[in-house]
Amino acid sequence: MKKYLAEMVGTFVLTFLGCGAAVSLNCGVDTASVVGTAMAFGISVIAMAYTIGGISGCHINPAITLGVFLSGRMNGKDAGMYMVFQTIGAIIAAAVLSLLVWTDPSLVEGTATGANACASNNVFNGLLAEVLLTFLFVLVVLGATSKTNGATNNFAGLAIGLSLILIHLVGIHYTGTSVNPARSIGPALFQGGQALSQLWVFIVGPFAGGALAAGVWKMIAPDGK
Amino acid sequence: MKKYLAEMVGTFVLTFLGCGAAVSLNCGVDTASVVGTAMAFGISVIAMAYTIGGISGCHINPAITLGVFLSGRMNGKDAGMYMVFQTIGAIIAAAVLSLLVWTDPSLVEGTATGANACASNNVFNGLLAEVLLTFLFVLVVLGATSKTNGATNNFAGLAIGLSLILIHLVGIHYTGTSVNPARSIGPALFQGGQALSQLWVFIVGPFAGGALAAGVWKMIAPDGK
Amino acid sequence: MKKYLAEMVGTFVLTFLGCGAAVSLNCGVDTASVVGTAMAFGISVIAMAYTIGGISGCHINPAITLGVFLSGRMNGKDAGMYMVFQTIGAIIAAAVLSLLVWTDPSLVEGTATGANACASNNVFNGLLAEVLLTFLFVLVVLGATSKTNGATNNFAGLAIGLSLILIHLVGIHYTGTSVNPARSIGPALFQGGQALSQLWVFIVGPFAGGALAAGVWKMIAPDGK
Amino acid sequence: MKKYLAEMVGTFVLTFLGCGAAVSLNCGVDTASVVGTAMAFGISVIAMAYTIGGISGCHINPAITLGVFLSGRMNGKDAGMYMVFQTIGAIIAAAVLSLLVWTDPSLVEGTATGANACASNNVFNGLLAEVLLTFLFVLVVLGATSKTNGATNNFAGLAIGLSLILIHLVGIHYTGTSVNPARSIGPALFQGGQALSQLWVFIVGPFAGGALAAGVWKMIAPDGK
Repeated sequence: MKKYLAEMVGTFVLTFLGCGAAVSLNCGVDTASVVGTAMAFGISVIAMAYTIGGISGCHINPAITLGVFLSGRMNGKDAGMYMVFQTIGAIIAAAVLSLLVWTDPSLVEGTATGANACASNNVFNGLLAEVLLTFLFVLVVLGATSKTNGATNNFAGLAIGLSLILIHLVGIHYTGTSVNPARSIGPALFQGGQALSQLWVFIVGPFAGGALAAGVWKMIAPDGK
Repeated sequence: MKKYLAEMVGTFVLTFLGCGAAVSLNCGVDTASVVGTAMAFGISVIAMAYTIGGISGCHINPAITLGVFLSGRMNGKDAGMYMVFQTIGAIIAAAVLSLLVWTDPSLVEGTATGANACASNNVFNGLLAEVLLTFLFVLVVLGATSKTNGATNNFAGLAIGLSLILIHLVGIHYTGTSVNPARSIGPALFQGGQALSQLWVFIVGPFAGGALAAGVWKMIAPDGK
Repeated sequence: MKKYLAEMVGTFVLTFLGCGAAVSLNCGVDTASVVGTAMAFGISVIAMAYTIGGISGCHINPAITLGVFLSGRMNGKDAGMYMVFQTIGAIIAAAVLSLLVWTDPSLVEGTATGANACASNNVFNGLLAEVLLTFLFVLVVLGATSKTNGATNNFAGLAIGLSLILIHLVGIHYTGTSVNPARSIGPALFQGGQALSQLWVFIVGPFAGGALAAGVWKMIAPDGK
Repeated sequence: MKKYLAEMVGTFVLTFLGCGAAVSLNCGVDTASVVGTAMAFGISVIAMAYTIGGISGCHINPAITLGVFLSGRMNGKDAGMYMVFQTIGAIIAAAVLSLLVWTDPSLVEGTATGANACASNNVFNGLLAEVLLTFLFVLVVLGATSKTNGATNNFAGLAIGLSLILIHLVGIHYTGTSVNPARSIGPALFQGGQALSQLWVFIVGPFAGGALAAGVWKMIAPDGK
């Protein structure tokens, strides 16, 4: 049970601080806001990796959990429970962030919760970006935590978090970058509209990318897993 | 005694260089200045963690000391002495920073010492932000230095410092980000006015957040501490 | 064979995400876009170092492979195969990036794939920059992975990746920064024009720099290698 | 002899890439250029720490060498030779950077080599900044490499390099940030004028700060050194 709680807390932190930075920095207003938001999402993962890594492995992302499950590193029950608690954590985060934003007079007009959306409403392009970026992100997760790189395991949290900065530097332009269904579900529930109608893109895309990563990693890993 | 001195020096460094960067970069003038100031506060913690970590554990923040004390990892006398010496270090830092700023003709008009203040004077919003952000920050501190994550202990300083960058990316918008009573007391004494009248927010908020973190960590830690 | 595949995947990631960030951030439009693009290239290396480092050593750059070969750390057949697979990975990356960019209506006019080019068409200056920067980059690679610094080997991936950020901070002004023939060949094939006619600069320069690094490292290494 | 050569190469890298980034990013033109230049200087130290750390300890800064010497960790002959070779490396760096800049038509008018200068010509303010910042920087160096923090020694290079980023975020406003006589001597020789007439500030200030750090570290270190 404690590991499920840890996943909930970790996904809360990722969503609250990642989306929270997107709101505070007014992500998209200039290039520095994009770099700062990217840093926030990535550092959230680094922070949680060294905080709850010893408890749950710190997935805090259903697409990662899918990739880890498909790689035969966890059982189905745990995978399901991880996803449920991750999603709950993200929803609570979006609620708390909304409260913080609503009590700040200077922010009431802007995008309130850092929801994802496809640039120019181009769903094909957005889906392509999410599949590709999640594939690369989960590939790093599977590689950095594999036995092959075992000697460097303590670096996994750092490498994975930095990768999420990288993924955001590329992806914010296309979709705001989800690569994480939970992180998208939370804000979409509170923002509604387009964020909700396009939500399927940020569930299907990351899951497809995570599954693809499990397949490719199996291909290049020395021991086939 | 040496550990108290180390806490004083460490808090001096955090306050002098963190607030010093806020002054040099004119924090708030553009997004890059916010990112740069966030980096300065976080790197100050990383620098000190690997400099005085072996002497005092490098709290350099009364809210962290409270969280560590409530987690049963240090005794009350040390906790009190840590807080006193941290505050002294921050006051000296604000004094030295004022001297540096006052002798620079190009800066005499600006905010001199990086004091905290609630955006739009909204004290409820500022207090909420400080409680939430300190809670998350001290949670990382307690988790990253716990036995559970013992194997990765050398990474704790890095993870905690990066987390402080993250916290500032989100919080500078709301309050300038304190999450550390000592860091707020020093500059407020030299700046006066609103910085002094709102100072209670940056003492109550961080202490409440630190206490909350101790409670939540107890809940998710495998061994209950 | 798996190590060749790993090099192909790694160079794909470096080229797709590095050049992809250059496109997304519209590199050159302001200083923050240069910093963000530099971060993307460097973090790509860090991500791959801890993902495929245990499989192939993570060169993902023919100039590094040349330097490692000349330092007597790998045989000629592997060196050749590494270079072939690195180049294939970069070409696939440029193809996939083109697809992503072409399906995004907001980007169709810009430079599509992050190809390199000499500032002011000054080929001598560009060649000088590429030789110098590749020399310094490969020197870090050879030093950080040498027996001399063996105790810190786990840090090599981090140090090398950060160095690539540094190299880009200096070099984007002059050539966009290649220091990697594969990373230049891929985009040039899809962009044509000047990118193709100046491509030799980004093959000759990096190879010369990599060879120079092998010579200088031999001079300062305690054991002569 | 190899360790002296290593110091020469390392100081070359720090000066060439640090000052080179200042030139490429046109440091001072906006806040992002300050953040990028700060990153370049700090990452230069990280890169060199993991490249030549095992050979010479990677001082690449006469003020650090003075602090290390005064802490009784090296003999006088080595200290003197280190300083000589560091200065030679920085002069060569400034020469090579000048060549690169002079062959680039787009740069011929700007400050060519990243020399230091006191803001508003205020020498007292500049000297105060250099003493304070070098004191804090060398304190981190002495602490992070001390026996007290021995368990975390592999992190020393990272912590020290990040600290130099921090120091620059604060100091670029006041003097461009030297904290390193060699790094100032090289560019000043090629730039002349004010850079040469104020050069003493960047020799006296850093040496005073380095000596001060040795004294304070002795005070807080558990074993008195």
